[in-house]
Amino acid sequence: MRIAVYPGSFDPVTLGHLDIIHRAHKLFDKLIVAVPVNPAKKTSFSVEERMDLLRIVCGKEGFPNVEIDKVDGLLAEYARRKNVMVIVKGLRAMSDFEYEFQQALTNKKLNPELETMFLATSAENMFVSSSMVKQVAGFGGDISHFVPECISDTIIERLCGEKKPEA
Amino acid sequence: MRIAVYPGSFDPVTLGHLDIIHRAHKLFDKLIVAVPVNPAKKTSFSVEERMDLLRIVCGKEGFPNVEIDKVDGLLAEYARRKNVMVIVKGLRAMSDFEYEFQQALTNKKLNPELETMFLATSAENMFVSSSMVKQVAGFGGDISHFVPECISDTIIERLCGEKKPEA
Amino acid sequence: MRIAVYPGSFDPVTLGHLDIIHRAHKLFDKLIVAVPVNPAKKTSFSVEERMDLLRIVCGKEGFPNVEIDKVDGLLAEYARRKNVMVIVKGLRAMSDFEYEFQQALTNKKLNPELETMFLATSAENMFVSSSMVKQVAGFGGDISHFVPECISDTIIERLCGEKKPEA
Amino acid sequence: MRIAVYPGSFDPVTLGHLDIIHRAHKLFDKLIVAVPVNPAKKTSFSVEERMDLLRIVCGKEGFPNVEIDKVDGLLAEYARRKNVMVIVKGLRAMSDFEYEFQQALTNKKLNPELETMFLATSAENMFVSSSMVKQVAGFGGDISHFVPECISDTIIERLCGEKKPEA
Amino acid sequence: MRIAVYPGSFDPVTLGHLDIIHRAHKLFDKLIVAVPVNPAKKTSFSVEERMDLLRIVCGKEGFPNVEIDKVDGLLAEYARRKNVMVIVKGLRAMSDFEYEFQQALTNKKLNPELETMFLATSAENMFVSSSMVKQVAGFGGDISHFVPECISDTIIERLCGEKKPEA
Amino acid sequence: MRIAVYPGSFDPVTLGHLDIIHRAHKLFDKLIVAVPVNPAKKTSFSVEERMDLLRIVCGKEGFPNVEIDKVDGLLAEYARRKNVMVIVKGLRAMSDFEYEFQQALTNKKLNPELETMFLATSAENMFVSSSMVKQVAGFGGDISHFVPECISDTIIERLCGEKKPEA
Repeated sequence: MRIAVYPGSFDPVTLGHLDIIHRAHKLFDKLIVAVPVNPAKKTSFSVEERMDLLRIVCGKEGFPNVEIDKVDGLLAEYARRKNVMVIVKGLRAMSDFEYEFQQALTNKKLNPELETMFLATSAENMFVSSSMVKQVAGFGGDISHFVPECISDTIIERLCGEKKPEA
Repeated sequence: MRIAVYPGSFDPVTLGHLDIIHRAHKLFDKLIVAVPVNPAKKTSFSVEERMDLLRIVCGKEGFPNVEIDKVDGLLAEYARRKNVMVIVKGLRAMSDFEYEFQQALTNKKLNPELETMFLATSAENMFVSSSMVKQVAGFGGDISHFVPECISDTIIERLCGEKKPEA
Repeated sequence: MRIAVYPGSFDPVTLGHLDIIHRAHKLFDKLIVAVPVNPAKKTSFSVEERMDLLRIVCGKEGFPNVEIDKVDGLLAEYARRKNVMVIVKGLRAMSDFEYEFQQALTNKKLNPELETMFLATSAENMFVSSSMVKQVAGFGGDISHFVPECISDTIIERLCGEKKPEA
Repeated sequence: MRIAVYPGSFDPVTLGHLDIIHRAHKLFDKLIVAVPVNPAKKTSFSVEERMDLLRIVCGKEGFPNVEIDKVDGLLAEYARRKNVMVIVKGLRAMSDFEYEFQQALTNKKLNPELETMFLATSAENMFVSSSMVKQVAGFGGDISHFVPECISDTIIERLCGEKKPEA
Repeated sequence: MRIAVYPGSFDPVTLGHLDIIHRAHKLFDKLIVAVPVNPAKKTSFSVEERMDLLRIVCGKEGFPNVEIDKVDGLLAEYARRKNVMVIVKGLRAMSDFEYEFQQALTNKKLNPELETMFLATSAENMFVSSSMVKQVAGFGGDISHFVPECISDTIIERLCGEKKPEA
Repeated sequence: MRIAVYPGSFDPVTLGHLDIIHRAHKLFDKLIVAVPVNPAKKTSFSVEERMDLLRIVCGKEGFPNVEIDKVDGLLAEYARRKNVMVIVKGLRAMSDFEYEFQQALTNKKLNPELETMFLATSAENMFVSSSMVKQVAGFGGDISHFVPECISDTIIERLCGEKKPEA
């Protein structure tokens, strides 16, 4: 059985992330979407909230072989424990590439059996990022082009502290 | 009437920014130089201080069609309200480019009528940035190559808490 | 009157180019779409053929202030002769950026009055290039996603030496 | 059955290519290493020679599920015909990335079912390229660090027109 | 006498840094490895701790012409005071390059006599960074591939607050 | 004695190259400016012509420790024969960087004693390249901003086949 992990902050999950899950889950027998537990990094949503949003989105899509999990510790160790053979990452841009490249080589050093594969984000989602979603939502802008519809209201409530009026 | 906006932190305005204002104001009937109000982002100068420095510099240059303003909220909304058809951005380097590209595509999504145009920073100013100015000034270095002369003392006073001795 | 020039090989014109023309022609009083005459560079379509394709496409769009021309000699000189104040370029990617940046700085040196402004290609057209169109057409692939419909058959005929069967 | 294709010029195959084959063949049920037939592109080795070198190298490694083939026409069409679901590409550098990204988005447009995944070249092989091998071999330099040993002599003979003396 | 300075945070020193010291010290009569004193930047090790780690590592290597120092103020001024003619920097990646390029041009402006030279990090160390070392160590991972052995335990003790068990 | 080599096509030598020679010759006891003999690469000036232009330019500058030479074969071998310890390269842009990085790692593999150091081109010369000079000169443009004055006429004569009229 070939198992892959798709790690990310998902703070919050965007249409770009969903696109990667969509495309990656077909390539493997199981795809684990994994949120790292990193107390040092300040996030807008807690680990549990981020996993909940992922569960809602992936549940809605009905992916048969996708699992939501968190990673506490090194990803390379997590992969070893879970028999993961591939890390999946979406690439949007050059700067992603450099950082991800470095991470991939580090993970290879820590766990030589572990591969990292990159998928190019689709053109429509190339400019979508979690931080952009938060920036737009924070100013009361329309985030419906950027996040799955089923979690849009939850995100706005959480970020603006008030419920979005029904359109 | 074709109106453009040149948004930026201008924390503080540099010779690089001034070069862009110089070149962009000729291309449009009106150019608004706009400071975003972003309470989340820590800056060295307040919004008002940054607007004042811009007013001094642009006043000195005598630009007939340049206006200083602040943007409270989404730039795409501001542009809609003010009938702005173009966002002007200066590009110094690759990393600027990636971020600005993402911003441009986001703004296009939020306001399809709004264009973003990029000007290449002139070679002499390619290495000038506000953060570099602050780094040099913070160590008591000479910032006269990097900022308009008329605001050089004000910047040093503000950043070092003491007046620069007359040379 | 503010006149801009949009230079390019247009070998052949693609949806990416058309998108730039669409967006740029609104920013200026006149937009000249200009094909450089460069005998040293091998192209698939002659200068006249490329201008014809541009005329068909721009005619179809009904742009009131767009003109097709060729540039024989230095672009910086052409701009001086035609009172052009801005060169418009579309940017798709980093590598475009570097080359275009260098061209912009060179043109500035040759004609200090002349600006170069860059527009970010829209996300949908980011991967569209003339050479890709030729590569796909050369293998009998479907180029309808990449070029304006009204010239698609002409391009295929010219590149494959035979008429595309009616679908 | 999940089938992947690893396309490339392999002109000639290097240790960098071999590293990708090594890592990619474990991720899929079948991996086709495919040489494109492109009469327009000048290569140092013929399609058949390149396939022979790949056969020698992959035979030596004893990969159970690797197949050597050529692609005559569009890769997206080849993938459709052969039930290939993934294109595998190795990335060494930024410039690779841009080109490959564009290819990936084009292939997605031509065949929406087809994914492209990228593997980061291992650090040791990051600087190895076919053109570098040819440059070094052309000047009589030592290529043993760059190509599989079993084909080193054949490459030198072919490129220099004489047999390398036994060391 | 040609004196060079190799400035860096060295928070902590890695095998990548050591590789640069190794290669750079041969090119000059004296090489000063210098830690900047920057109270604004939060580091994991104090200036003194970082200098101590450098002293241990460089002592172990027995470099005859390497000196450890700290830089309080502008590097360009330090260089002037110490008759340094060259700043040495290691480059791992594009993003390093952009930042370092900007620093080099700034330093040139502040001290026209001062050169900056870049060495390409060796392929094996390209992915090694201090922040990666801290990330791996923080999760209890094995950092022996990334830092000189003689300081590995000290780093782990300091970052994890406990001594690494003898292997 | 520390000897460095500055290799390049110099087809023809530009102010950018001269800037590097200026800055590099002070860092070493001897600097060899070396033109590679590469029959496969089509150049505008012959090896001898390029060396002559370099001799004129360097003679004019009166560099005491600069030598002009050609490299027939691998640079790594040339360096070994001539006791060269460093290759000097000027970097203008990202794309240079990638290629030069690859060359540096290759040369390190072929000659482990040999270092490559990079100097950042000064801001004024960042956009100057030999191919740009030829492009401008080919169209009768003014190349005086881009090449040393003492060889400007010779370059124009050679590229345009006629003597530039006295200004």
